[in-house]
Amino acid sequence: MEGIILTVNAIAATSATDPLVRATVERRDVGPRDVLIEIRYAGICHSDIHTVRGEWGKVPYPLTVGHEIVGVVTEVGAEVTRHAVGDRVGVGCMVNSCRECENCKAGLEQYCTGGNVGTYASVDRDGTVTQGGYSTHVVVDQDFVLRVPEAIRYEAAAPLLCAGITTYSPLAHWNAGPGKKVAVVGMGGLGHMAVKIAAAMGAEVTVLSQTLGKKDDGLAFGAQHYYATSDESTFETLKNSFDLIINTVSAPIDMRAYLGLLRLDGTMVSVGAPPEPLPVPVFALFGQRRSFAGSSIGGIAETQEMLDFCAEHNVAPEVEVISADAVNEAYERVLKSDVRYRFVIDVDTLR
Amino acid sequence: MEGIILTVNAIAATSATDPLVRATVERRDVGPRDVLIEIRYAGICHSDIHTVRGEWGKVPYPLTVGHEIVGVVTEVGAEVTRHAVGDRVGVGCMVNSCRECENCKAGLEQYCTGGNVGTYASVDRDGTVTQGGYSTHVVVDQDFVLRVPEAIRYEAAAPLLCAGITTYSPLAHWNAGPGKKVAVVGMGGLGHMAVKIAAAMGAEVTVLSQTLGKKDDGLAFGAQHYYATSDESTFETLKNSFDLIINTVSAPIDMRAYLGLLRLDGTMVSVGAPPEPLPVPVFALFGQRRSFAGSSIGGIAETQEMLDFCAEHNVAPEVEVISADAVNEAYERVLKSDVRYRFVIDVDTLR
Repeated sequence: MEGIILTVNAIAATSATDPLVRATVERRDVGPRDVLIEIRYAGICHSDIHTVRGEWGKVPYPLTVGHEIVGVVTEVGAEVTRHAVGDRVGVGCMVNSCRECENCKAGLEQYCTGGNVGTYASVDRDGTVTQGGYSTHVVVDQDFVLRVPEAIRYEAAAPLLCAGITTYSPLAHWNAGPGKKVAVVGMGGLGHMAVKIAAAMGAEVTVLSQTLGKKDDGLAFGAQHYYATSDESTFETLKNSFDLIINTVSAPIDMRAYLGLLRLDGTMVSVGAPPEPLPVPVFALFGQRRSFAGSSIGGIAETQEMLDFCAEHNVAPEVEVISADAVNEAYERVLKSDVRYRFVIDVDTLR
Repeated sequence: MEGIILTVNAIAATSATDPLVRATVERRDVGPRDVLIEIRYAGICHSDIHTVRGEWGKVPYPLTVGHEIVGVVTEVGAEVTRHAVGDRVGVGCMVNSCRECENCKAGLEQYCTGGNVGTYASVDRDGTVTQGGYSTHVVVDQDFVLRVPEAIRYEAAAPLLCAGITTYSPLAHWNAGPGKKVAVVGMGGLGHMAVKIAAAMGAEVTVLSQTLGKKDDGLAFGAQHYYATSDESTFETLKNSFDLIINTVSAPIDMRAYLGLLRLDGTMVSVGAPPEPLPVPVFALFGQRRSFAGSSIGGIAETQEMLDFCAEHNVAPEVEVISADAVNEAYERVLKSDVRYRFVIDVDTLR
């Protein structure tokens, strides 16, 4: 198939306001270091919605989004050594990076100082605009393709590629584990993964959610405590408690209240990105030498580590599988937080 | 002298707006674990001014401030083992703490979860309001009295007890040293100490000051680079550069610009406290897994370590010694940043 540009079925956004529609996208030749993947499932991430609606900047319409991609390898380039036809694989939020900066060399491609190449809406190093995973096939450089362990079902693997690694990476970096008290703010797609992963790491996990509506789920996912943030006494009860808070909520929050929950040398890490700056009272940081940090997905090696960890610890997201034609409805439900806990598109419905 | 309450000369604030005046303060009995110190010098910290002017909350007037205190021990209680009559000693920002919480037990009395007892304007554990160092004598529990090494002149030792430890502690905690790039924001009392200490620790030090007015000083203090923050190109030139930024400025700053100067896993630590929350753009934290943190003075053991470090490395603040009657004028000059770099009151002028 080398030399032939593939035209494949997809779902695309054509403007910030129109519904997504069936379309086709072109995939580049399978180069010597590329892998052609027949996509089986693609997760729906809130970022997809922000992007197609133009909330995160100018969009190169028509655009196919999706960066939680799993499938099977159907062709490999001549120099490909890491993957073989028939392999179960995944692709997350990046498909390339400069590979030369100190961060890339350290396996932290997500922090590539030149900027990594996003799975969609980015300009790849060959000059083409990347198109994401709501489609039947994708061609990706072998170095940005992950192995999906047999123990993880295809549809459950998809959300691990973004929601999984986005929460695993800060939990690992800030040493969640036995003896550590970890709070997870928000019980959505990211939050429920953070709970499962932190619990699997051995941390004592507390969920801080607006209401107690998902309490049974939270405890079933491995949390030991569950508090409603709409109840002000929560912030008094839990003062100076946590070593680590993973904030998965992108809405503005009362930073004074949340920072007050950290104990000495505790860190609050935001993995959701509110569009407006968050007002941080410096006195709240002083109090117990607290930190407020950000974390962005994870490197390729760490993403593989996360997949292997999830396979070993039987950690998988809760998913609701939908057909391709249900994507617009799913978007509306994501915006209403009406999903437990991640929509995954069955890409067979696009063939 | 036991059983006799001492009445000693001092300078006191009587309201938020009136000039400081000569007054007397009472010092408690020298208890079994107390040390009576004849004060020689007292530094003037910007916090003193904020406090007496009521900018940090309600003030128990009349109040004597000053928490950069050095002098000589003239009497000790029966159970005192750590200090002897004739010793050169110092007292910083704290004179007591609960001694029972996990932070106190870890030697981090500054983070006492019950709140440490400040050297002035605090209620001590015996119920009295503490009075600070702009006075001829002070009575302090031996555990909160530091040894001042012979190598440090009395008047130079004073600012170490606040400005010194406030900058030493975050530099030590965040591992300033050889191979690390450290930026110091602001070249005032705290900033000039941060430069000297970071350089003595072996870090590569850059000063970020509003103008280049103090550049010669900065380089003489050990900085290798000096940039004006009024020049916008500074923020482009130094992007992704620093492992650690010590922010000594309490005025609001453009957090997006400063956070952008941090390299991967870099931390910006504020030791100055702006009254209003600082707007932190979360995207700027994401970019290189950056952190924004706060740090408050240092523990007693660490303050002793800092004094010994300064003696060993010949680190001393630049001071301008003034008489007690010049305090009001000095306050005006501090507010205009017209001091290089710390006023120290010669307490002999109060006797």
